[in-house]
Amino acid sequence: MYELGVVYRNIQRADRAAADQLAQYGSATVHEAMGRVGLLKPYMRPIYAGAQVSGTAVTVLLQPGDNWMMHVAAEQIQAGDIVVAAVTADCTDGYFGDLLATSFQARGARALVIDAGVRDVKTLQQMQFPVWSKAVSAKGTIKATLGSVNIPVVCAGMWVTPGDVIVADDDGVVCVPSARAAEVAAAAAARESFEGEKRAKLASGVLGLDMYKMREPLAKAGLRYID
Amino acid sequence: MYELGVVYRNIQRADRAAADQLAQYGSATVHEAMGRVGLLKPYMRPIYAGAQVSGTAVTVLLQPGDNWMMHVAAEQIQAGDIVVAAVTADCTDGYFGDLLATSFQARGARALVIDAGVRDVKTLQQMQFPVWSKAVSAKGTIKATLGSVNIPVVCAGMWVTPGDVIVADDDGVVCVPSARAAEVAAAAAARESFEGEKRAKLASGVLGLDMYKMREPLAKAGLRYID
Amino acid sequence: MYELGVVYRNIQRADRAAADQLAQYGSATVHEAMGRVGLLKPYMRPIYAGAQVSGTAVTVLLQPGDNWMMHVAAEQIQAGDIVVAAVTADCTDGYFGDLLATSFQARGARALVIDAGVRDVKTLQQMQFPVWSKAVSAKGTIKATLGSVNIPVVCAGMWVTPGDVIVADDDGVVCVPSARAAEVAAAAAARESFEGEKRAKLASGVLGLDMYKMREPLAKAGLRYID
Amino acid sequence: MYELGVVYRNIQRADRAAADQLAQYGSATVHEAMGRVGLLKPYMRPIYAGAQVSGTAVTVLLQPGDNWMMHVAAEQIQAGDIVVAAVTADCTDGYFGDLLATSFQARGARALVIDAGVRDVKTLQQMQFPVWSKAVSAKGTIKATLGSVNIPVVCAGMWVTPGDVIVADDDGVVCVPSARAAEVAAAAAARESFEGEKRAKLASGVLGLDMYKMREPLAKAGLRYID
Amino acid sequence: MYELGVVYRNIQRADRAAADQLAQYGSATVHEAMGRVGLLKPYMRPIYAGAQVSGTAVTVLLQPGDNWMMHVAAEQIQAGDIVVAAVTADCTDGYFGDLLATSFQARGARALVIDAGVRDVKTLQQMQFPVWSKAVSAKGTIKATLGSVNIPVVCAGMWVTPGDVIVADDDGVVCVPSARAAEVAAAAAARESFEGEKRAKLASGVLGLDMYKMREPLAKAGLRYID
Amino acid sequence: MYELGVVYRNIQRADRAAADQLAQYGSATVHEAMGRVGLLKPYMRPIYAGAQVSGTAVTVLLQPGDNWMMHVAAEQIQAGDIVVAAVTADCTDGYFGDLLATSFQARGARALVIDAGVRDVKTLQQMQFPVWSKAVSAKGTIKATLGSVNIPVVCAGMWVTPGDVIVADDDGVVCVPSARAAEVAAAAAARESFEGEKRAKLASGVLGLDMYKMREPLAKAGLRYID
Repeated sequence: MYELGVVYRNIQRADRAAADQLAQYGSATVHEAMGRVGLLKPYMRPIYAGAQVSGTAVTVLLQPGDNWMMHVAAEQIQAGDIVVAAVTADCTDGYFGDLLATSFQARGARALVIDAGVRDVKTLQQMQFPVWSKAVSAKGTIKATLGSVNIPVVCAGMWVTPGDVIVADDDGVVCVPSARAAEVAAAAAARESFEGEKRAKLASGVLGLDMYKMREPLAKAGLRYID
Repeated sequence: MYELGVVYRNIQRADRAAADQLAQYGSATVHEAMGRVGLLKPYMRPIYAGAQVSGTAVTVLLQPGDNWMMHVAAEQIQAGDIVVAAVTADCTDGYFGDLLATSFQARGARALVIDAGVRDVKTLQQMQFPVWSKAVSAKGTIKATLGSVNIPVVCAGMWVTPGDVIVADDDGVVCVPSARAAEVAAAAAARESFEGEKRAKLASGVLGLDMYKMREPLAKAGLRYID
Repeated sequence: MYELGVVYRNIQRADRAAADQLAQYGSATVHEAMGRVGLLKPYMRPIYAGAQVSGTAVTVLLQPGDNWMMHVAAEQIQAGDIVVAAVTADCTDGYFGDLLATSFQARGARALVIDAGVRDVKTLQQMQFPVWSKAVSAKGTIKATLGSVNIPVVCAGMWVTPGDVIVADDDGVVCVPSARAAEVAAAAAARESFEGEKRAKLASGVLGLDMYKMREPLAKAGLRYID
Repeated sequence: MYELGVVYRNIQRADRAAADQLAQYGSATVHEAMGRVGLLKPYMRPIYAGAQVSGTAVTVLLQPGDNWMMHVAAEQIQAGDIVVAAVTADCTDGYFGDLLATSFQARGARALVIDAGVRDVKTLQQMQFPVWSKAVSAKGTIKATLGSVNIPVVCAGMWVTPGDVIVADDDGVVCVPSARAAEVAAAAAARESFEGEKRAKLASGVLGLDMYKMREPLAKAGLRYID
Repeated sequence: MYELGVVYRNIQRADRAAADQLAQYGSATVHEAMGRVGLLKPYMRPIYAGAQVSGTAVTVLLQPGDNWMMHVAAEQIQAGDIVVAAVTADCTDGYFGDLLATSFQARGARALVIDAGVRDVKTLQQMQFPVWSKAVSAKGTIKATLGSVNIPVVCAGMWVTPGDVIVADDDGVVCVPSARAAEVAAAAAARESFEGEKRAKLASGVLGLDMYKMREPLAKAGLRYID
Repeated sequence: MYELGVVYRNIQRADRAAADQLAQYGSATVHEAMGRVGLLKPYMRPIYAGAQVSGTAVTVLLQPGDNWMMHVAAEQIQAGDIVVAAVTADCTDGYFGDLLATSFQARGARALVIDAGVRDVKTLQQMQFPVWSKAVSAKGTIKATLGSVNIPVVCAGMWVTPGDVIVADDDGVVCVPSARAAEVAAAAAARESFEGEKRAKLASGVLGLDMYKMREPLAKAGLRYID
């Protein structure tokens, strides 16, 4: 249940180093490192392929068909932030285009994650301002009703608290609670350190069945081979 | 309610200059310039990114799983047209492929907008013949049942009259009634003329809050800042 | 109705030459050549554009949120195979990423077709290991419950028997029964041999109405032209 | 493309006798009698089972999340009308509840057909005021933006002109152009007159294969029986 | 991959006693008794609440928008059968209404399970002829293209072989392979024999935690209680 | 981001009198009384029509395909509670049937709200144990993985804190924060006190246009009447 018409100016951003470090691992590894929680629903897709970012969440709650609060949110952005936008009802309108992106980028935002639509996607790609959204739509919005900025929001099924770390790439979007950022970064780094060796083994033809010692548990579970 | 089995040969196409001019503004600006109407549903997506076109509508009403009328429509195409195809029931079949595209292109068509599926999309991209559709499907169609050509149709939720101007790009597809084409082109041009200045200001760090003078109306609406 | 917990080691793969030959025709032509059957539902989309493959099916039945059997399937892969994965319930989790792709590629697999989600899609594109899936998701899976390998499965609405030929490209995925592979390859080749001539005619402005002699049947069906 | 902010007071309603007569045949028979056109998309469902109505369309175009024009439409209702409501964008909000239903019923409306949501459905059933909608939602709407009344609208994919006849029952909603009402009523009556006899034959065990003389065309089409 | 244009007259129906016995357990218990397989996708819903049936499958493969084969299937029905209908492409048309239901009922059919739409649903309920479908639609179909009768089909994601037992109720539709019918009936009966005692215990306030001895495994899995 | 494997035993339930009082107003009135927030997504539907309840939330976080925590939740139920169940990923499985309902009812629960599937719906209706869910499915679940009980959860897009008041009826499900329960009950009562008079006026033929004094603002907004 949302508090409407408020802007929280002072939010506790996650540790900057940890927030920055998480981008390199990508959403899949971070999701694993957290114990398989924190993922936004997979309908959230990047507007262009290849971007991979992390940053601290500035949240904004929007009303259907109304992007007034996006301008309010812009003022709260600091360098290294990612704006996370939720709407009080399902809506695919294009809340965000090249002008807002110019403003967000000027303030230091790294990306937008929005549970609604965006437009001017060709220009956004040229500007290299990545967006993860549930729709692309040329339909613009009005500026008439208050929402809020920097309150906790539900975005694409996930609870996001201002200051949390957002990690996004072609695989999706993950939210890491600010208190866990350093721990998750360490766990993700540890996971990655084993990957190179595993990849080399698998590339040489070693089977996961052997590398992960799965044959015995599979047999125990009752797997039968039939010739 | 559709009239079946008819082909209207003489349609009133929108003013050519206006129809051609609209492409440069893109669907989002045109949609705004019209007063936020005319947009096809956002499930209509381009089969490849980057195309941006406008043209006059030749319409075709198809039967489910049957593309016979596409061939009838081809003959009605003039240079500068965009074919707009509706189906009498929901269908994702691939009504259109590289052969029809070759024919359409030879007749001077600039694009296809179809509330159904298309195929041969790799070849269509190589040919640079853009299509906006709701699906891609290898499933072909038969040629057995009559529809109509150049009757008004509902395509992706929007009423399109033959001769209307269609504007399509990565953000979606907009229909401009032929009688409004010149007026909308002027309004779109006016909108664009302000954009460069706005963009420069926002890029320099000026906030939309100040540029659009939103602080007072936001306060009046009750927005509270909490430190 | 599926048999659980079994792996069939010896499957009858389709004729290798026919299986290899089918890739060049693409899914749309092969679908036509088969008499318009065999297509998986069009929600199956490639994770990147441009790949076009054919190969013999190794099938795997997975449990929701569990990719244990993917490792079992890896061992059954031979050079020229395409893995076809079904799940016992609707699921969008990311069952497959770069490590499994490394293993599959090392075994000689050409692609994966999965009625669920995949992840590490950027890396998969760099590796040029194509996947057709219904979702992309960073959400990983566990390894706890048995499914089966090389039993007949329903994948995206289509019945696939181990050893069938899979043809996949940007237009979708088609399954050719192994017994029909040679016949379908011949029919597809025949279709293609006519395409060049047709394309040239259409490009020169000849209408399909004339080339396919449709004017008479259209008139017979009652088509009326109105000036 | 819609004209906004207008109310047409004088619409040409279909012939009253034909409009009233169509209810008894139901949507399926009327749809057949029209030549299989005119059906709204099947996502339009009754809020309770068993109602079967026909009437003349008063149309209303609504804005997303805004039911202001419903009150404007109420004044245009005459006895025997059915209100047909479209929205300028996808929306599931509850635009209509028991108070508006009381007003509509007092004005003589027989039903509402709305391409959006409704609420108070238990009370609407108690009042026996049937509604066909795409959603049920407790979410209310505001009254801030103009739409129009009695302009042609696209409702659930179908073009509805004010004064057309609407026929709705548990099978769906059909729109009959006012000019065709009498002809369609006659055709529907003719269809029904044959149904009793057919039903009796089929109930006695006669097969449709024989009653409709399908065996020969099936054989001609190549149907093979295998023992 | 389907064989088109054939009717298999002699199918091996499951043991009649087992087929009849399964109805009483309902789809949920039968699904459990089979080891949690065999369920059609949950979008298959009854057209009216309360029916609970079982019977042997007569299958029919239909073409989109074409119900010709339904009449061919009628002749193959024997008392105690349930017709299972699949379509070669996604379609929501109303393939089946009161006349066909009269014929099916006269032949001894107990129900229809169809991965498409039906109509005349009010009359079907009055006739007490239950249908499980994915849609209700007034849209009729033509009779022009061959499908097949009594070939194995994929219906709502499940493979159904002619003669299999179908169990359907308000919870959904399950397919039991004919060879397993007796075994599954026995397993379902065993499950049910324990349910009365369990229900009485739970009704008296005993917790499942204690009745199923879950406290220890939950603690072992790490569950923590916090006061 | 969810805490897994914990059960909070002591939750602060909303004021009992307010919690009980809210049922009578229904979800639409309560939603309005709260300022149009708090509604779960409209895909949440009752398994049978007519139930109207309110109660205090006991929350449970489930894993996909696993209902183990439902049994843990049962122990935390007190008389007057409504169980609110979320899942860590999209799932339509039948997590809840007549045995669990018997247990919940014995503990004093009034209803279940679950963002997944349920089964045994006929028996649940006979027991008069209402459920609001996104699906009905005969597919059962396992008991293998920990979730949590009485942590805040996101259910159908809405944030629900243990102890909040849930109001549910045929129009949907609303969540009232426990701290606002008394205030919202008072506001809902006030709304209802005006409804009788309004309904009488509208029933007598007075228009909302006049009763709500809309004619002037409509004219000001530019509404034009055309004869």
